[in-house]
Amino acid sequence: MSERDPLDAVLTADLAPDQAVDAEVLDAEDRLRPDFVERVLDAVDAGDAETARTLVEPLHPADVADLIELARADEREGLVAALAGLVDAEVLAELNEHVREILVSEMSPERVAELAGELDTDDAVAIIEDLEEDDQRAVLRAMEPDDRAAIEEALTYGEETAGRLMQRDLIAVPEHWNVGQVIDYLRSDAELANDFWEVFVVSPSHHPVGTCKLSVILRSPRATSVADIMALEQTLIPVDMDQEDVALRFQKYALVSAAVIDASGRLVGMITVDDIVHIIQAEASEDVLLLSGAGEGDINEPVLDSYKARVRWLIANLLTALLASTIIRLFEGSIERLAILAALMPIVAGVGGNAGTQTLAVTVRALATNQLTGSNRWRAVGREMRVALMNGLTVATLVGIAVTLILGSGQLGGVIAAAMLFNVLIAGFAGVLVPLTMERWGADPAVASSIFVTMVTDSMGFLLFLGLATAVGLTG
Amino acid sequence: MSERDPLDAVLTADLAPDQAVDAEVLDAEDRLRPDFVERVLDAVDAGDAETARTLVEPLHPADVADLIELARADEREGLVAALAGLVDAEVLAELNEHVREILVSEMSPERVAELAGELDTDDAVAIIEDLEEDDQRAVLRAMEPDDRAAIEEALTYGEETAGRLMQRDLIAVPEHWNVGQVIDYLRSDAELANDFWEVFVVSPSHHPVGTCKLSVILRSPRATSVADIMALEQTLIPVDMDQEDVALRFQKYALVSAAVIDASGRLVGMITVDDIVHIIQAEASEDVLLLSGAGEGDINEPVLDSYKARVRWLIANLLTALLASTIIRLFEGSIERLAILAALMPIVAGVGGNAGTQTLAVTVRALATNQLTGSNRWRAVGREMRVALMNGLTVATLVGIAVTLILGSGQLGGVIAAAMLFNVLIAGFAGVLVPLTMERWGADPAVASSIFVTMVTDSMGFLLFLGLATAVGLTG
Repeated sequence: MSERDPLDAVLTADLAPDQAVDAEVLDAEDRLRPDFVERVLDAVDAGDAETARTLVEPLHPADVADLIELARADEREGLVAALAGLVDAEVLAELNEHVREILVSEMSPERVAELAGELDTDDAVAIIEDLEEDDQRAVLRAMEPDDRAAIEEALTYGEETAGRLMQRDLIAVPEHWNVGQVIDYLRSDAELANDFWEVFVVSPSHHPVGTCKLSVILRSPRATSVADIMALEQTLIPVDMDQEDVALRFQKYALVSAAVIDASGRLVGMITVDDIVHIIQAEASEDVLLLSGAGEGDINEPVLDSYKARVRWLIANLLTALLASTIIRLFEGSIERLAILAALMPIVAGVGGNAGTQTLAVTVRALATNQLTGSNRWRAVGREMRVALMNGLTVATLVGIAVTLILGSGQLGGVIAAAMLFNVLIAGFAGVLVPLTMERWGADPAVASSIFVTMVTDSMGFLLFLGLATAVGLTG
Repeated sequence: MSERDPLDAVLTADLAPDQAVDAEVLDAEDRLRPDFVERVLDAVDAGDAETARTLVEPLHPADVADLIELARADEREGLVAALAGLVDAEVLAELNEHVREILVSEMSPERVAELAGELDTDDAVAIIEDLEEDDQRAVLRAMEPDDRAAIEEALTYGEETAGRLMQRDLIAVPEHWNVGQVIDYLRSDAELANDFWEVFVVSPSHHPVGTCKLSVILRSPRATSVADIMALEQTLIPVDMDQEDVALRFQKYALVSAAVIDASGRLVGMITVDDIVHIIQAEASEDVLLLSGAGEGDINEPVLDSYKARVRWLIANLLTALLASTIIRLFEGSIERLAILAALMPIVAGVGGNAGTQTLAVTVRALATNQLTGSNRWRAVGREMRVALMNGLTVATLVGIAVTLILGSGQLGGVIAAAMLFNVLIAGFAGVLVPLTMERWGADPAVASSIFVTMVTDSMGFLLFLGLATAVGLTG
């Protein structure tokens, strides 16, 4: 394949580099090889922009974006200058938002406007929405009136809604057309985009009445009426729908594209699956990051932002730890008399915390993927309690035997086993009930749940163990 | 729209129910409303299969699958019997694998073969691969020879590889054809599937030489040669590629479909984005579940399987907790003399553990999404250490002041602040280095990392705090 010249720049830019390039540049998992990255950066460093460009030229825009991200922050400006034209609008659209923000802030508003004008509305909006208000206005002023109107309209919709994701370039045809008319229309207008997979059929008032997959159009004779082959049951996305819900809908119904409608039901845009794929990824990632209190968790985020996001969580954790600590202080006398209690109590709290986190992770994901609803809520609680009972009995038995054997006290072994069993049960209960309650209250169950659950398992772990030990007279 | 009859059953089955149905049946997030689920189950319970079928008939197969999942395990058999024909092959393909396994185990091999025969190879494989070996053979024997050969071939590829995901129904055309020939071919064969978005162009030896988006074919005059409009640079997926890597490649290059090739480079199948979307979701979910040791974390998994997956993790946690406990025992004398130490030490361990988990979550996700490679590994470590330093200084200061004020001991405040700072630094270091090392060793960084990191932060937290308190003479 590599001896041929690309015949259609638009098309080839949308596809991955061929396998010959892959072998040297990308590893088996499509990551840029470290030695390739180094070669490019060394060339830039040596002032040899020519070599750098030759190396980078065959790359897909997504790989050029990766290259820029993989360079150190202080190398990026030089790299982008050396690559010049190779860092085009497509590359900008693929870039991590934090890295892009810095690059864009160094460009003139006219240059940003030019690049944004080459992109689909959704990608242009992604670049422009993060700008400071003044810069945003300057860029919009520098744009073509059509593009400007499209972006200004998109910006009127809330962040992370369908309105920001959609593109306005779509193919809409009246239902009285036949297949031949559709094909002729598509052939006649060289301005049309190539990235569409369905044709939307609309009423005279521009309300969607059906859709036709391109495969169906291609396979039908020219005389066939569009109305006869269109699918009537279609998924219409309200323009203000949250992007997470849009992503779940695409996933549930295996959609490749879908019509976006405004409040009056008129067709205003289209969302395609390639814009959705990274949202599914991001929303699922978000849960692991939120559960651990790591905020956005992007390795390109400025260090100060990461600090702010994470320290809040650590301070909240510090407060709950102080609470658990006051419970321990109630038993200071017991601990003075039997210091081994202090050595054993973190076991009860720690294993309980882990059991709670397990249940929490399962519940948060089941909620996020719509597997857990009002219909099976109590069944899920019952299920988690059964698992907790089995887990609790197992670890309680093990810890009881271990403590009895190591410390030679069956009474101490019994106390820690009982405390462990109850704490794992409490952990299971809190792990499933806290996120369910958060969800009912309209809060994100991933955000606030884990701090509550850990607080419960820590406090109860200490209270159960120290309380039981004191109650049975172990501390004399 | 709803006054019309669906004209094309194949097409409408692939799309979501129209909005009129949505309003009563689905909530704003496309979940089946609990009262709707109840109405259906009540009708089944009352022996009124007719009403149940009327309610369920307008639903999309994905929603019928959800309905079956939302029913209690003991209600499912009755529900499926009442719905009869409505639980078709598409519904089976959409079902959660654990729920499907039970339903399928109650069907005759002939019925399973019949249903599998109606599906794309990849969906049929998903149903058949989970069967016991005997049942699998019985089902395969009952299938049409063509379908059987396709599935048997797919089963020769490893689980979770491209070979299992791909479908064999695809459109491949020779490069000497023109657009008109392609269109005539597509119109001629009524047997062809409708779910394709690109046409693959192949050499006489069936090696892929390019691809044509359907939009490009539709927009080109009939006389245009396919060779002139095809994209030469295409993504070829080796048949043994891991599904996670396939998903990352689709995401990176915004693919809608891609050719799958065998070891000799011949086109053997096609993967489409709708099969990929749920893998992206599943792989991202996997990380949050693995990090917490929750195994597969599917709420439909049998309780015994969930127990087995989770208890292993809790036992591992128990062992590391015992290790931390032996460290505390070294300082039993100090604790006897100053029991407040026992109340304060979990704060140091707990906040350190949380800081470690934050770094871990960020690192695991950056590795999973290919943002973190050999090129920026050390930079990531440096970045996390800077965040850890800022976090450590903040929480150390706060805890130092709090302990000094509450307990009236500046020395104790100083000791806990110093221990906290060092533990948060150690947590940051372990949180980024452990997963990086796992990845280098070829292990999944999400699986084993968190147990190591918690062990480090617990042990070091206790050691630092109790050791420092003893060293400065706080315990007399």
